[in-house]
Amino acid sequence: MSKHATPDHPIHELLSKRWSPYVFADRPVAPADLNSLFEAARWAASSYNEQPWRFIVAARGQDAAFKKLLGCLVEANQAWARQAPVLALGVFARTFQRNGKPNKAAAHDLGLAAASLTFEATARGLCVHQMIGIDPEQARAAYSIPEDHEAFTALAIGYPGDPAQAPEALRGRDTAPRARKPLAEFVFGESWGVAADLAR
Amino acid sequence: MSKHATPDHPIHELLSKRWSPYVFADRPVAPADLNSLFEAARWAASSYNEQPWRFIVAARGQDAAFKKLLGCLVEANQAWARQAPVLALGVFARTFQRNGKPNKAAAHDLGLAAASLTFEATARGLCVHQMIGIDPEQARAAYSIPEDHEAFTALAIGYPGDPAQAPEALRGRDTAPRARKPLAEFVFGESWGVAADLAR
Repeated sequence: MSKHATPDHPIHELLSKRWSPYVFADRPVAPADLNSLFEAARWAASSYNEQPWRFIVAARGQDAAFKKLLGCLVEANQAWARQAPVLALGVFARTFQRNGKPNKAAAHDLGLAAASLTFEATARGLCVHQMIGIDPEQARAAYSIPEDHEAFTALAIGYPGDPAQAPEALRGRDTAPRARKPLAEFVFGESWGVAADLAR
Repeated sequence: MSKHATPDHPIHELLSKRWSPYVFADRPVAPADLNSLFEAARWAASSYNEQPWRFIVAARGQDAAFKKLLGCLVEANQAWARQAPVLALGVFARTFQRNGKPNKAAAHDLGLAAASLTFEATARGLCVHQMIGIDPEQARAAYSIPEDHEAFTALAIGYPGDPAQAPEALRGRDTAPRARKPLAEFVFGESWGVAADLAR
């Protein structure tokens, strides 16, 4: 199963190949690959190089640890994510380590790191399905996450599965075409809402 | 000028090569390349596929437009970003278009899109230097950005320059080694703050 984008302008294959499956193959992810995924996140850019991202990771093989992490997802996500070989929580530090002041960019920079992780995953034939649907307070309780950190996302990581083997609902999601707004609707020039001459 | 990461685990070259220069070459960016950069952003993942990102872009050749955009940056960033061939503002929609409810993931998902744009740039020999140091209300006024959108970042885009040609302060920034926390400090397992067995 793969789901290529249909770009209007050429983009790198690792970007057009990236997608977020609901159905994962019953195949573990090698620790060496996981190391490289988090290493990719490590080298992302961040405001003042604060590196506000933190990850909590569990593999399906680790029964208790995986169940604990799965329990931090909203139920709708638990339904499909329980089949993913690896789950991670994406957490950010709300404040700068050097001065304790609020880091406005923290959630944004977690996104930069998660995108790097996903790019590395795609290069390795893996898929990442990110979720905002988690229970941050459940995560705080389960892992004693300090007050100045916030559990924000979850990431399901693994090899794409065969939607035909999946429940009807998931099958439809994974076989639906990918759709995006045209550039003209989000790349503006001298005036808000008016497409940039530079990019169309 | 290039600045490779020194990863502890192998990562894709487009991730290890990525860096954020302060000094750009005096060389324009072709519109076709810009189109592909924003196309890369377009295909990023987002919560409910909302695609909350918006960009406002100006090239240095467009004097009035470039000055208007440069004026939305804090002065410390204007000092070096005025030399970049292309500047963009990263904006997000605070609410979902379909129901007007707050989109908690908006800033995070702008980060996903900006990272995709940056991978595409790296693949094309371009560099992107992102900034959180902008004046959102100045941007709102300059472009009449609606209340339910927020200007959040700026991106300087171009070919890396020669730090030796730059003022002392910038020269030092671009020649300093890149540093990151080790994986064990941000990838946790069953307990917060304890390195995951899966990734070390």
